[in-house]
Amino acid sequence: MFDIWVPPTDREAARQIHERISNLTKPLGSLGRIEELAERLAAIAGGPLPSPYPRRAIVVGAGDHGVTAEGVSAYPSEVTAQMISAFLGEFAAINAFARMARAEVYVADFGVAGELVAHPRLLDAKVGRGTGNLACRAAMSESDVDAALAAGLRVYAEVEARAHPQVIALGDMGIGNTTSAAALICAFTGETPEAIVGRGTGLDDDGIRRKIAVVERALQRVGEGAGWRRIAAELGGYEIVGIAGVLLGAAAARTPILLDGFIVAAAALLARAIAPNAIEYCIAAHRSRENGHALALRALGLSPLLDLDLRLGEASGAALAFPLIEAAARMVCEMKTFAEAGVATAHEPIEA
Amino acid sequence: MFDIWVPPTDREAARQIHERISNLTKPLGSLGRIEELAERLAAIAGGPLPSPYPRRAIVVGAGDHGVTAEGVSAYPSEVTAQMISAFLGEFAAINAFARMARAEVYVADFGVAGELVAHPRLLDAKVGRGTGNLACRAAMSESDVDAALAAGLRVYAEVEARAHPQVIALGDMGIGNTTSAAALICAFTGETPEAIVGRGTGLDDDGIRRKIAVVERALQRVGEGAGWRRIAAELGGYEIVGIAGVLLGAAAARTPILLDGFIVAAAALLARAIAPNAIEYCIAAHRSRENGHALALRALGLSPLLDLDLRLGEASGAALAFPLIEAAARMVCEMKTFAEAGVATAHEPIEA
Repeated sequence: MFDIWVPPTDREAARQIHERISNLTKPLGSLGRIEELAERLAAIAGGPLPSPYPRRAIVVGAGDHGVTAEGVSAYPSEVTAQMISAFLGEFAAINAFARMARAEVYVADFGVAGELVAHPRLLDAKVGRGTGNLACRAAMSESDVDAALAAGLRVYAEVEARAHPQVIALGDMGIGNTTSAAALICAFTGETPEAIVGRGTGLDDDGIRRKIAVVERALQRVGEGAGWRRIAAELGGYEIVGIAGVLLGAAAARTPILLDGFIVAAAALLARAIAPNAIEYCIAAHRSRENGHALALRALGLSPLLDLDLRLGEASGAALAFPLIEAAARMVCEMKTFAEAGVATAHEPIEA
Repeated sequence: MFDIWVPPTDREAARQIHERISNLTKPLGSLGRIEELAERLAAIAGGPLPSPYPRRAIVVGAGDHGVTAEGVSAYPSEVTAQMISAFLGEFAAINAFARMARAEVYVADFGVAGELVAHPRLLDAKVGRGTGNLACRAAMSESDVDAALAAGLRVYAEVEARAHPQVIALGDMGIGNTTSAAALICAFTGETPEAIVGRGTGLDDDGIRRKIAVVERALQRVGEGAGWRRIAAELGGYEIVGIAGVLLGAAAARTPILLDGFIVAAAALLARAIAPNAIEYCIAAHRSRENGHALALRALGLSPLLDLDLRLGEASGAALAFPLIEAAARMVCEMKTFAEAGVATAHEPIEA
């Protein structure tokens, strides 16, 4: 049975950083969300920040979905393997953004159906070759859930050994996975399929109706009161459960985690059900245009840094937030306080 | 009399980039605001993008304000010169963010009252030593307005000669300048002082009431139908008019411009009154927490990229958007199309 302990973050370290930020040469609170981010990074680090967080990794979890048989995606399943070739060939969106962010991209195959060519940054974490069709039956067995979580921990350990990341971004690739993610988000938050199901990669109105009906059917099968293992087995994708495992591994290692969009939010809800402290290590990089992502983030208690109308996945939105991590760290470590700089503070009398 | 011609941007180049973006290996439109940004960059470049825009400059325009005598700022005027020392000493917020963005910081002194020590990146563009108190009289003469605009053009030319920037961020430093900026924004947009005046660096409720009264008095003196030169003379700050000059110089040179917050929005409104095409070269980096910034951006027809509750100035918000410029350029220049990559598109039949 899969189990993991994640330590709480360090509130005292966050308080100390808050104190320092309050004395930096700028009006109190004037760097808004960047200050909040620095405090969260301090709580995670439990001491000095490894500014400017030079070692950065991106892990894209990949898997295929039997539910594509229901016509819930605008793209055929083959595209999952084709896009992985694009990631490893370094000409996809995530590669362009990773170069900007100076981050290394790893792909973890948790359950791709098609054949993949070996590559140094393709990590084999395969649990199966595409899930069962969640419209009709459980996507995977409960022991597959444990296997995918354990595979996620191994993926984190491998990335840790190779790249020693000081911050990690998590993303997804899997044709059909917005259906699985929507079902998981409904199950973990109690929201309705109408509120959560969205267009994915570009579904039309008929497609959306089909997708809502599929999610409703699957949720009825799960029923009320199911535990996280049963929910994940019925509704999951191999990559979504795997990403939850990577997240738990990173959190257990006290590494800050940039969450990408809708799919990763579903993985984070699963991770929270397993180890609630894990969410303290998470930073919501952006709000996706996909319906229901905002509700999933609210359920996680996370407020997104960016809102750029993205709906791609691949960790593309998460990668865009690395510079904000660097900015927050540099703010804390490179700015002087009023006293250090000899600048007058707001408390001195105003000239009149 | 100050005059400048700014060419329109190249819509055909934007259309061509749009066409390419539509064929990249990702769902149509799935990179949202990053795609829009790439199209604007293409219109500005009028051809291939200089990806990843490695040469980046930040210009912080500085000046002092006679209106501080009215108690409209939480800080004394001396802080303007002290903060410039911090910028040149490289330990202020803008320096931390500039290092993240790999951008060079220049400070242009358009009208600081205090003494400044010479420094290679302090550009002398002085028009006066602090403006007159706009609560009682014109902040400067109309010939000062022309002089500050011309000084801004010289600042841009100097930065161009030294750093050859492919993208420039504009910011401000000047205790009291949110009062001047609020008055200018009201005059250029027709909005009321109640809608536009905000807390600046941290004013209390009494202070806000004083500030609104000051802006109302100044606007009454200007009256209806005044031209941009008269408006700028009555309400301006040397640095706000100077920043408008830098903006016009950058636009005339077809350099994309990242706008910082509230003060720079006032400068952009002035620049637009002088040369409407100039705004086509502008990218609103962020929405400030300062009251009225959102209305000023709407009047400019610009939608901000970031919304991080910042209210610092110094170009700090603008600097945080450099990585998005890089990401947009890399997306266009480094991603392959579906045809180039051999990936199936959404138009192929869905498996069922």
